[in-house]
Amino acid sequence: MLLNRKELIVKTNFSQYPIQIGNGLRHEIGSKVAHYQNVLIVTDKNVAPLYLDEVKKSFSSQQSVASFILPAGEASKSMEWYSKLLDACIAENLDRKSLIIALGGGVVGDLAGFVAATYMRGIDYVQMPTTLLAHDSSVGGKVAINHPEGKNMIGSFHHPVLVLYDIDMMATLPHQEVRSGYAEIIKEACLDDQELFMKILSIKPGELIENQGFPQHLYKGMAIKASIVEIDEKEYGVRKYLNFGHTLGHAIETELGYGKITHGEAVAVGMLFAMWVSERIYGCSLPIQELKTWMKHQGYPIDDWNELENQALISRMKKDKKALDGMIHMVLLKEIGSPSVQAIDEKALLKHLQDFRSEYLTFES
Amino acid sequence: MLLNRKELIVKTNFSQYPIQIGNGLRHEIGSKVAHYQNVLIVTDKNVAPLYLDEVKKSFSSQQSVASFILPAGEASKSMEWYSKLLDACIAENLDRKSLIIALGGGVVGDLAGFVAATYMRGIDYVQMPTTLLAHDSSVGGKVAINHPEGKNMIGSFHHPVLVLYDIDMMATLPHQEVRSGYAEIIKEACLDDQELFMKILSIKPGELIENQGFPQHLYKGMAIKASIVEIDEKEYGVRKYLNFGHTLGHAIETELGYGKITHGEAVAVGMLFAMWVSERIYGCSLPIQELKTWMKHQGYPIDDWNELENQALISRMKKDKKALDGMIHMVLLKEIGSPSVQAIDEKALLKHLQDFRSEYLTFES
Repeated sequence: MLLNRKELIVKTNFSQYPIQIGNGLRHEIGSKVAHYQNVLIVTDKNVAPLYLDEVKKSFSSQQSVASFILPAGEASKSMEWYSKLLDACIAENLDRKSLIIALGGGVVGDLAGFVAATYMRGIDYVQMPTTLLAHDSSVGGKVAINHPEGKNMIGSFHHPVLVLYDIDMMATLPHQEVRSGYAEIIKEACLDDQELFMKILSIKPGELIENQGFPQHLYKGMAIKASIVEIDEKEYGVRKYLNFGHTLGHAIETELGYGKITHGEAVAVGMLFAMWVSERIYGCSLPIQELKTWMKHQGYPIDDWNELENQALISRMKKDKKALDGMIHMVLLKEIGSPSVQAIDEKALLKHLQDFRSEYLTFES
Repeated sequence: MLLNRKELIVKTNFSQYPIQIGNGLRHEIGSKVAHYQNVLIVTDKNVAPLYLDEVKKSFSSQQSVASFILPAGEASKSMEWYSKLLDACIAENLDRKSLIIALGGGVVGDLAGFVAATYMRGIDYVQMPTTLLAHDSSVGGKVAINHPEGKNMIGSFHHPVLVLYDIDMMATLPHQEVRSGYAEIIKEACLDDQELFMKILSIKPGELIENQGFPQHLYKGMAIKASIVEIDEKEYGVRKYLNFGHTLGHAIETELGYGKITHGEAVAVGMLFAMWVSERIYGCSLPIQELKTWMKHQGYPIDDWNELENQALISRMKKDKKALDGMIHMVLLKEIGSPSVQAIDEKALLKHLQDFRSEYLTFES
């Protein structure tokens, strides 16, 4: 079963940590963190019945291992669950040398990571992503909870000590979650790797994680993410590129209501829009049509946002925490592999959105 | 009125920030942060009627300046007020380039600082201490809220961009708050400056902030704090020394119930105990008797903890977040100016506490 094992090292300002990707790694976590006496595994109701026991069995009897099971879904990234999880840390007597393990998707990773960032002013944690989408959020130390007024409004930068990615766990994912995660790999390819972008566009319908190249695509996507994070840990500059596709993507996600469309599927539409705006602003030519066609064949629900009002979407974009001084900052592409940030005012962006939608609905696919 | 103006620079790993100490500085804050368009001043019900208007008047009409007034007292360092203050940041449309000003004592500084640390993953803030005690907490970037099970259990490291200390504001402080703050200056002297320690012991009864040396004592105390923080930003080593007197101090404070004794007054007793343990462990000779006599003459309530049970105090010490693997880590002195950390087990510490109290109650003062 041990087909592929890859390791990346992320170098941060004060430390470095490995990202290990491979088959069956969930059975090895205990031995990899054997020096922690007190461990709290945070997971959710979807993941716990599938993998929690296997993960627990990997620990020795000398380690104290407790678990905390969250409700599944974005609603757990709340002040309420943040507070409850902190209570659990105290109830389990975690001290400054204890470890939190985030076993789950982005919601579990972001919440457990924010708790690790702030419990006793910061303790160690491990990211064990169980979704494809979380390949992105598990690297780079951005942790947060949501506020009713916006996603990730409350959070920190706090790097994990290890990212352990058992790709066997991807096999239990629903198709839409696989599509969601692959969209973020496409985003990473758009920022830095034309060859990867073309390889992904050659994946046949319905074969996203079945295609032979999958582990390599995942590895390359994470390597791109890691390299950007290393250069710009606190998002003063190039890290903003990682928001490619997220300006409209976040707005669609929030306007539809969380759970109606997956994050990556909303970002997929957002990338088409960002490419479309890029062509208008830079006069470049991008493979928008090819990407849209491929997405449609792969089952991306790229028309699910048709009912949303343009003005409502623009208002959401203005509330984004990347908005500054009333301007919306959008990541665009000069070509695949060459991103740039543009400040665009509200009126101009509304016009682009109107034009995109009238053209988008008619351009063939 | 501009008698004394001093500036210290604190150099952190990524940045540096000034500490400005002097008379009348509250009238100048607006011009010092003129480049922030959107400012939220956080203060409390005691401070607001005294100084909020003066601080607000220092801003230009081009700056948007809002304020948020907390209830006075330790109870505001809670998850509830953390959440409410974050709501206010959103309601006031603070973005990543906005500024929070903490105008108040340690409670305001710790809470507003933790909000600044986590709102949008960190925005700028200024510390404007209005108490003498806050000279300590306003430097070094430790921010936190309390949990029902322990002080400062939830927090971050997040440095201010400026500490602005208008010592005129000390004039409105009650005597016990002055004693509380001077105790932390004594602590700083114990860690690094025998001369400062002796000078403080020569202050006549009732003349703590009236004595001519006060601004200089404050400046030197803050300089000691700043130099320790610079060496060890995240408390891996020497920063632990700043907990001198806090092992028993925190325990007394928590056992008596917050508000029954000030923080510094509890730390004063804790320093006597730490010196007493130091003599037993290192066989050194420390000016315990002189310090106790001086404290008594200055009105420190050093006997207010007589009713507390030894075992209850030890249990509190074990819950301290500095406790590790069941050992209590205590800062001791080999001599004034020469601190050291010792891990002491529960039983040994209980014996020391019993012996100290039986001797403490009888040694003359």
